[in-house]
Amino acid sequence: MYKDMMFAKSVLEIDLSRVLLNYQKISSLVGNCNIAAVVKAEAYGLGAAKIIETLYKEGCRDFCFAYLGEVDAVQKELKDARIYLFNGLNSYEFSHAVRHNIIPMLNTLEALQQWGEYAKQIGKKLPAVIHLETGMGRLGLQESEIEKAASSQLLAYLDICYICSHLACADYRDHLMNQQQLKLIHKYAALFPNTKISMANSAGIFLGKEYHLDQVRCGCAIYGVNPIPANASQVIQVATLNAYVLQLKTLERDQSISYGARYHAKKGAQIATLACGYADGYHRLLTQNAFGFYAGYRVPIVGTVTMDTVMADVSEVPAQLLEKMEYIELLGDNITVDELAERANTIGYEILTSLGSRFKKIYIE
Amino acid sequence: MYKDMMFAKSVLEIDLSRVLLNYQKISSLVGNCNIAAVVKAEAYGLGAAKIIETLYKEGCRDFCFAYLGEVDAVQKELKDARIYLFNGLNSYEFSHAVRHNIIPMLNTLEALQQWGEYAKQIGKKLPAVIHLETGMGRLGLQESEIEKAASSQLLAYLDICYICSHLACADYRDHLMNQQQLKLIHKYAALFPNTKISMANSAGIFLGKEYHLDQVRCGCAIYGVNPIPANASQVIQVATLNAYVLQLKTLERDQSISYGARYHAKKGAQIATLACGYADGYHRLLTQNAFGFYAGYRVPIVGTVTMDTVMADVSEVPAQLLEKMEYIELLGDNITVDELAERANTIGYEILTSLGSRFKKIYIE
Repeated sequence: MYKDMMFAKSVLEIDLSRVLLNYQKISSLVGNCNIAAVVKAEAYGLGAAKIIETLYKEGCRDFCFAYLGEVDAVQKELKDARIYLFNGLNSYEFSHAVRHNIIPMLNTLEALQQWGEYAKQIGKKLPAVIHLETGMGRLGLQESEIEKAASSQLLAYLDICYICSHLACADYRDHLMNQQQLKLIHKYAALFPNTKISMANSAGIFLGKEYHLDQVRCGCAIYGVNPIPANASQVIQVATLNAYVLQLKTLERDQSISYGARYHAKKGAQIATLACGYADGYHRLLTQNAFGFYAGYRVPIVGTVTMDTVMADVSEVPAQLLEKMEYIELLGDNITVDELAERANTIGYEILTSLGSRFKKIYIE
Repeated sequence: MYKDMMFAKSVLEIDLSRVLLNYQKISSLVGNCNIAAVVKAEAYGLGAAKIIETLYKEGCRDFCFAYLGEVDAVQKELKDARIYLFNGLNSYEFSHAVRHNIIPMLNTLEALQQWGEYAKQIGKKLPAVIHLETGMGRLGLQESEIEKAASSQLLAYLDICYICSHLACADYRDHLMNQQQLKLIHKYAALFPNTKISMANSAGIFLGKEYHLDQVRCGCAIYGVNPIPANASQVIQVATLNAYVLQLKTLERDQSISYGARYHAKKGAQIATLACGYADGYHRLLTQNAFGFYAGYRVPIVGTVTMDTVMADVSEVPAQLLEKMEYIELLGDNITVDELAERANTIGYEILTSLGSRFKKIYIE
């Protein structure tokens, strides 16, 4: 089924044509508004290099990272793109950042002062985004700092690409905080005349035009995670995990399966052992609470998820289909990232960022 | 505090002297019995190369992996060591495996036949471990296959280093299955005269001498995870995660913290934003259910764990100590891997294998 499988057993397929479809969907929603693709954490586990290459070809020129190390690893794909750094810079990173045209988020007044002083010192206007706290409580300048920033002499040395903030509750359409945060960013924006505003994450995009402003920052929706769980997903699944069947056995006696003897199987049951475990990002909390998919059959995951393997009971699959069985789908069109997340008591984002390095990654163009 | 921190912010310290202490503790328990160090999944996330180098110097010569790809990455450190492959080999991997002296687990009768035929064909006696199913229900030959294997002509072409099996419930000292599995392996061993037996994992080692047999396979205990949670740990913590403080702020108003507005903080509260999130393996389930440690103070994790960051309420730490705060410990002597696991509704193994690639890894010799 797959070529060149030496060294790995299970396969993570990433459908780049679907990444494009999701990106185009976002484009159609936001019109002329700039889209910054969030590619931190290896593009949410799917591989930043290929994702950037794909989106760049489609015209995307704005990419967001958390750390300099992430940027460095994909410098080649970024070409002339604008590179935003969410977690900011330490002063010992400044010269490197300038050489690579990094646009840091200035998350504190101190960060703004340091970056401004550096620009002054090297005699070069440096780009930046000023991050304003409006309710997320994570990073960004609070009100008194915003006022100081707005009147800072150092702004003369900076090219403020955007002021930005981050929505805390955009995944709940009717949450009061959405409007409150929007009001606040407009209030603060008045202090920064002629400066563009960036506010919405993926969920925020679906809150409507008033949230789009000058730039949206889009991550999960591009990667097929539904940003508003209460609504039907408007994006399509991107990742498919096909777990290799290491062993298929017909039990010779009644017995339990896996650690802790949690699952009791009967003699004659067909048990498949799959090359995928929690070290590969298949959460241990999926123990006895997930299923795989093969040839039209849903097959339950049985027994404790182990570090490198998980077992599926495939007794209901007809024998002639079992003979040909090489892989079982553990994530894909038949069990989406959102469904798997719900079963693992988390969100789709964490399912994606957990996906491990031991899979063979295959990109479908 | 740390040198050379360009590109990363938070630090994962791995204390190799403690790895050694844990290994020596195991050694003292098992006497002359061979110890195979389980270094699959990047030595449970701590970095296989350094762990192997450390244990090799101490005299360890047996190392266990899940996949060929894992072995290839650390070939240099392995030198003349014996290399076991838990998940077995596919036939297209045979020639590579022979060149690299891999000892595959023969998990099925078919695997035994293929490896035996290959040995016959190339005219070279090939090493192997025959894996017998005794109750784990994961991999290994069942009874009828074991009988066939024991009488196979192909055994003449194989050097059977061990027969092995795997304990399913060794973390529960008094679980009936422990004795049942031990009985079964001895029953099957009679079919393979003069063949060594390997049975115990880390937990099995603590079940007593009768489980040690000829080889123990030790993973989690070396890495500081307590293999028998009901008992006081007999091993010491190896990993320390020091999360970098991206921002420390005094709230200018009452407000909620992070996604979903789950935590309500008062004006004047001191909130630290740390460079560590679920994409780094700090499970989202730790939301509002963990704490960090700084200068003798336990500081609660507040609000939802986000992809790249988490917030701690450090209001109780005196101002003069906050001034000097650079890092907050999220995992270490003050909050062990076992405690963090319990809070995340999992086991210490998964905490370790989740630890992400964006930390600066520092090894303490």
